[in-house]
Amino acid sequence: MRKHAISLLLGLCAVCALPAAAQQNLFVAQDIESPVVHEDGTVTFNFLAPDAQKVQISGDFVSKTEEVQHVNGMVGAGLLSMTKGEDGIWTYTTSPLPSELYSYEFIVDGVPTIDPNNVYVYRDFATITNVFLVGNGQADLYKVNDVPHGTMHYCWYDSEVIGINRRLSIYTPAGYEQSGESYPVLYLLHGMGGDEGEWVSFGRTAQIMDNLIAQGLAEPAIVVMPNGHAGMEAAPGESSLGYYKPHYMDHGTMDGDFETAFPEIIGYVEANYRVKADKAHRAIAGLSMGGFHSAVISMNNPDLFDYVGIFSSSLLLKDYAGSDSTLPAYSNVEEKLAEQFADAPKLYWLGIGSDDFLYEINKRYRGMLDEKGYAYEYLETPGAHVWTCWRTYLSIFAQKIFK
Amino acid sequence: MRKHAISLLLGLCAVCALPAAAQQNLFVAQDIESPVVHEDGTVTFNFLAPDAQKVQISGDFVSKTEEVQHVNGMVGAGLLSMTKGEDGIWTYTTSPLPSELYSYEFIVDGVPTIDPNNVYVYRDFATITNVFLVGNGQADLYKVNDVPHGTMHYCWYDSEVIGINRRLSIYTPAGYEQSGESYPVLYLLHGMGGDEGEWVSFGRTAQIMDNLIAQGLAEPAIVVMPNGHAGMEAAPGESSLGYYKPHYMDHGTMDGDFETAFPEIIGYVEANYRVKADKAHRAIAGLSMGGFHSAVISMNNPDLFDYVGIFSSSLLLKDYAGSDSTLPAYSNVEEKLAEQFADAPKLYWLGIGSDDFLYEINKRYRGMLDEKGYAYEYLETPGAHVWTCWRTYLSIFAQKIFK
Repeated sequence: MRKHAISLLLGLCAVCALPAAAQQNLFVAQDIESPVVHEDGTVTFNFLAPDAQKVQISGDFVSKTEEVQHVNGMVGAGLLSMTKGEDGIWTYTTSPLPSELYSYEFIVDGVPTIDPNNVYVYRDFATITNVFLVGNGQADLYKVNDVPHGTMHYCWYDSEVIGINRRLSIYTPAGYEQSGESYPVLYLLHGMGGDEGEWVSFGRTAQIMDNLIAQGLAEPAIVVMPNGHAGMEAAPGESSLGYYKPHYMDHGTMDGDFETAFPEIIGYVEANYRVKADKAHRAIAGLSMGGFHSAVISMNNPDLFDYVGIFSSSLLLKDYAGSDSTLPAYSNVEEKLAEQFADAPKLYWLGIGSDDFLYEINKRYRGMLDEKGYAYEYLETPGAHVWTCWRTYLSIFAQKIFK
Repeated sequence: MRKHAISLLLGLCAVCALPAAAQQNLFVAQDIESPVVHEDGTVTFNFLAPDAQKVQISGDFVSKTEEVQHVNGMVGAGLLSMTKGEDGIWTYTTSPLPSELYSYEFIVDGVPTIDPNNVYVYRDFATITNVFLVGNGQADLYKVNDVPHGTMHYCWYDSEVIGINRRLSIYTPAGYEQSGESYPVLYLLHGMGGDEGEWVSFGRTAQIMDNLIAQGLAEPAIVVMPNGHAGMEAAPGESSLGYYKPHYMDHGTMDGDFETAFPEIIGYVEANYRVKADKAHRAIAGLSMGGFHSAVISMNNPDLFDYVGIFSSSLLLKDYAGSDSTLPAYSNVEEKLAEQFADAPKLYWLGIGSDDFLYEINKRYRGMLDEKGYAYEYLETPGAHVWTCWRTYLSIFAQKIFK
């Protein structure tokens, strides 16, 4: 009777014809697939809107070789025009796209909208976009593949310094529950427009770690992803603020408290997880604001981290804003850096995209490191201030640590 | 220099005016709040669409006292018409709504769309909707309140019976990491249109448990939420199928394998978490298909569960489809029930909404239990086959178990 139980439920459903009071919306999904990722890397978008006058696609895959209008898209720089079929379905097929995890949305008669046939919607702090993945390349690292999977934990620690309960995302590698072993820890920090969830969603951290560990390319490690806005309990929707409209600057962002309070997070992790609790087995890395945090926290705690990753960011330079800071987190930068590099981390790694708006300050920071003779590794890639770069940098950085 | 670091990053961003290559979409969120939940429980929706001819709201809060058109909405039964202002912003304000977690979407010139100013989007297997919460009542149980929070775990177990690696959502109560104690376990199962994530999102299980435990109304317990489609590794987007278009009937749904293989899940949980591993400390409950699963699994394993919860569902009756089943999971129902009730569970609890399309079969099932003299508790509420009921039932059931 394989299908009899199903028939029972669906049969009853059809017979009763769903009463006027709301039932589940399970049965009303449109029978349209969008996007369709083809074998050759081309991607077709489909959208039913018989009465629309103009439907466009805004996405981070819009390349300069496409015919685009350069207007204010929500995600990328250009808009692709879809074509309406006689069935009222608008379509567009791209040229072959490089392997990547992409974001997009539709613009329908000027109004931004999520693709209703793509249930994969990621939140980038205060905005949402659809995502899709083109495989057979770098993005295979971002897939859930047939390899052993680690566990994701979302837990809370009490911050005595900040005075609130705060949420952490923690990845433990496959086998953690059974092995009885202790593991090194990577502290992985998000940017100004992120929270403790973003390295998990857009960042694909669990998948990158699962896949690199399974291939023997990265050491099994715990990855701790805190919320870098000091005054935030948790990501939007996960805190006592409820389902509010978030803004990334409302939460004690970059006021120094996150860096000052950071040792509490290490304390929580080392009390509650089986970790190797020494400098040789601690790494800290982050993107944009999180790269700045990583530089500051490692400089303020020269005995804690043997691996530092600064993605699309830099430490503030004295001749920039911040030079007059009296906050402890940002004071005495030269002296602290000198102390940090006196017993230098095994790896001080910087990566940035050549189109990044922070490229120049990053370049000047490297110039200062050169001048002082502080050793570091540097990677420059194509790209701007986007997740494409940060996933790549994590993939590379994770292969260099704890070895 | 509280704001200097921010000024630096934003200043640079403004100066560089974001190059044509895509940057983050952090800075482009619309300055519109929607929905706005007012103190008196009225809710205002706002949507910028200057060129639209008609904008409507489809939602599960549309009551019969509102002036509505009864057409095919995506979520509820009616549509509310928004009014366009001179600024191109469409608005609608509801009458006061009872405290609840609600779902909705906009219909713009006939096209369903997510509210672009509400970043809270939940997936109901194959469809997505926005959510908002009206507090000061039942829904306060669904909020993240200022109480100790448990940890959510997303882990994977190997199913030898099914032959795939499968994902589990597990809630451990506040203090689990530090207490050293063992806990009872509630196995909580989703419906046909769900997966291991849905009791966490729409179901608000972590918040309900946190809040009930903090008030002393529920015993601290572990809650295990597996994926009830036997052939599925994990929820859409979390498995090796990638970002595919999901359909709820493609995954060995209700073919008996989930029930047959269920003891593996118990084995995994009891090997990897500190649990009280006896009948008195195991509960199983579920909604719709998950209620059916709970009835079948508890009947097939009469020594395992002292608490059984059947939400908006029932066990199949012999005179319905399924009577000719030769699958072990569904065979010898009368004999198995007799055995289960010979050493009856302490609680066999049924709840259903009076408008539910499964109301009649549930009633007949209760008739059979009455006829046999099998003890059970029953709760009938207003409502249909919807999360409003299931969150309420979990809130009640969780207060009755392990006491």
